[in-house]
Amino acid sequence: MNYTEKVIARAADRLKTIDGKTVVGFSGGADSTVLLTVLIKLLGADKLTAVHINHMLRGDDADSDENFCREFAQAHGVEFVCRRVDVRAMCGDSAVEETARNARYEVLSSEAESAGAKYIALAHTASDNTETVIFNLCRGSGTAGMRGIPFSRPCGKAMIIRPLIDCTREDIEGFVRENRLSFVTDKTNFDTHYTRNFIRANIVPELKKIFPQAEKAIGNMNFSATLDYDYITREAEKLLKKVKEGKMPVSELADCHPALALRAISMLSPVTLDFEHQQNILAMIKSPCGGKLSVPEGKYAESDGSSFFFSDGEKEIRPEYEMVLSEGLNFSQYGFCIAVGNDNGSMPEGYELVGEGYAPPEAKLTARSRRASDKYRFWKMTRKLKKMTGGFDPDAKKYRPVICADEKVIWLPGFPSEDIAGEGKIKIKYYKVNK
Amino acid sequence: MNYTEKVIARAADRLKTIDGKTVVGFSGGADSTVLLTVLIKLLGADKLTAVHINHMLRGDDADSDENFCREFAQAHGVEFVCRRVDVRAMCGDSAVEETARNARYEVLSSEAESAGAKYIALAHTASDNTETVIFNLCRGSGTAGMRGIPFSRPCGKAMIIRPLIDCTREDIEGFVRENRLSFVTDKTNFDTHYTRNFIRANIVPELKKIFPQAEKAIGNMNFSATLDYDYITREAEKLLKKVKEGKMPVSELADCHPALALRAISMLSPVTLDFEHQQNILAMIKSPCGGKLSVPEGKYAESDGSSFFFSDGEKEIRPEYEMVLSEGLNFSQYGFCIAVGNDNGSMPEGYELVGEGYAPPEAKLTARSRRASDKYRFWKMTRKLKKMTGGFDPDAKKYRPVICADEKVIWLPGFPSEDIAGEGKIKIKYYKVNK
Repeated sequence: MNYTEKVIARAADRLKTIDGKTVVGFSGGADSTVLLTVLIKLLGADKLTAVHINHMLRGDDADSDENFCREFAQAHGVEFVCRRVDVRAMCGDSAVEETARNARYEVLSSEAESAGAKYIALAHTASDNTETVIFNLCRGSGTAGMRGIPFSRPCGKAMIIRPLIDCTREDIEGFVRENRLSFVTDKTNFDTHYTRNFIRANIVPELKKIFPQAEKAIGNMNFSATLDYDYITREAEKLLKKVKEGKMPVSELADCHPALALRAISMLSPVTLDFEHQQNILAMIKSPCGGKLSVPEGKYAESDGSSFFFSDGEKEIRPEYEMVLSEGLNFSQYGFCIAVGNDNGSMPEGYELVGEGYAPPEAKLTARSRRASDKYRFWKMTRKLKKMTGGFDPDAKKYRPVICADEKVIWLPGFPSEDIAGEGKIKIKYYKVNK
Repeated sequence: MNYTEKVIARAADRLKTIDGKTVVGFSGGADSTVLLTVLIKLLGADKLTAVHINHMLRGDDADSDENFCREFAQAHGVEFVCRRVDVRAMCGDSAVEETARNARYEVLSSEAESAGAKYIALAHTASDNTETVIFNLCRGSGTAGMRGIPFSRPCGKAMIIRPLIDCTREDIEGFVRENRLSFVTDKTNFDTHYTRNFIRANIVPELKKIFPQAEKAIGNMNFSATLDYDYITREAEKLLKKVKEGKMPVSELADCHPALALRAISMLSPVTLDFEHQQNILAMIKSPCGGKLSVPEGKYAESDGSSFFFSDGEKEIRPEYEMVLSEGLNFSQYGFCIAVGNDNGSMPEGYELVGEGYAPPEAKLTARSRRASDKYRFWKMTRKLKKMTGGFDPDAKKYRPVICADEKVIWLPGFPSEDIAGEGKIKIKYYKVNK
């Protein structure tokens, strides 16, 4: 069997139960070009929408990739959509990769909804999976990480599927050669790309010298680990029916098998618990006196000897305030100054610029302390403020306001402001005091 | 903290609940020399018996290792025992490593019994564990292999413990340097040693460049995988209480979670099932018609739609025969010839020598077909014949006799004969016909 037949047979086996409109993530790289080619053959071009995401991180390269993808899709009669996501603007310089991934899934999910597609096909291969499993193994992501990359999982209202998950990189390269496919080389370089590339270049080839079937063996292990994980999760769900108002009877946890107790505790936890936390909580459960343990993100795991629960730590008290903004400079006692208006006035002395935003004309503008329920929309995505302030410095965490127009949040300085188009929009500049 | 303190602290943590006489496996290599040194400090020399096993595979080297170990133990006031195990004679050239390992455990277990020791301490480290997990991951040993090397497990009436399982190779090397320990370099080269050495030399150092804490992360994963594995095993034990006369109601397996069904099936199976077998059996369980699937070693997994069970295949019919042996050549219709007596007569024409054994004087000697219950003792170990004939060629499987003296099995030609010492023992030569 040649590579083309092998890749198509394996994808067809995975697609046995898949039927209906499918959105295809299409970067233009070798993997996704093979994926699109295979899906055209197996599902038909009319069922597909190829979605290319331009992360706007790489300038000209990114634009030429976009053009390649558009031409390839059009040449094969596949509907093509390009979406631009300004990752750098969304997250500054921190967590670029995670932000890009989340943005990608959000875009694919919204495109699936627009296209009426049940499926989102992604081009992950058995080789990607092998790298992921080695990565998970060595960084300590426990048995959950031994499940590897799943063939399918829900994403919004659609289902992500990975038809090439049983094909190795060699299979993909063989398919490309046999079909003389063109593709682009992705030069994006995210942080953990370094680690992944290292695993790909230095570790997997060595492993395959002594274990030529490593991808297959790892895939089989993933299958069993996924079953085992799912079984324990379901049993833990049954156990968690005993939870009342967030509290679990300690005796239920102490009397059951520790594997089950740990899974239930992890599922109850509002944060991801690492190995040490899990062990400490397990010891606390067994102690008749109970205890209180600090876990990530300022939360606590507590037992009073009869109930087990997670609690918030004593929160830092943030001042509550609201100030009406007028044209010109608005100084605050909390160490910031907001300039409203389109005349490019000079920076107030002793302050530095944090960012610029826009407000609609003739709205009542206010700056107020942030609230737990705050969210706002920018770059076509609605985001919770709580999830955005993690990287703030302590001063910003405590005092940074949101800017509202007629009571509606339009801007969290430090991030882009809401996309406000149109005539007469008003520029706002946010300054913080120099320390 | 220096390496010495670190190694001792980690071993002490593992030894918290360990108290009593301990046999220590002592090859004289760096790991076991550190282990013995640590145990002298933590348990006291008077509690220890150092057991050195000479595998007789390496001639002079092996003897000098033995001398090093004896002198080291005696210098530290530790009781010393050396046992010689002729691995090559026990297994010919096949499965040297497995035979050596089994022989080692058998010797250690019997020495523990002689010494009245509850524990057998072995020198496996976190680095050995890392290699084992990578090995298991890539050769396809499933979630069971993700448990890694356990700290303890039963072995005969004693318990194997591994006090250095939280120490890496660097820790051991640091301990050796700081304490200026001498040790020997083990040059034994078993088959899978090649694979292990490759993982050790080419893969782990690369992984540690990007994951300096890999051993720790893998150890934590092993802990969770062991808990999960144990939990599912216990639940499967409950399920298996439904087994009557080796038969399990199919509905019980079909209705439970596949993770649980697979574990129960694996536990019921007389042979180790690989991934494909497991998947096929799972599919058969779900089918109302049942089926019959071939599994390793000539066994079958069967479902008649209401019961699931394992069965033996149709056995090859072996002829039953018994012949009385006289001095001189004894020809058999089954393609062999047995020479009895101490005169070195020449080989019968058209035959080749398989091996030589000894019989006690003046016993009635017979050669007869093998029986399922046959076992015999050589090199101080009693072995079941059934387990020894797996590597025989088809002719030998069908026709190879056992040699008996006064009805007692004394020899299976192809293996060493019973250790018969003393005056007047009689030489027996076994020839097979040339084909």
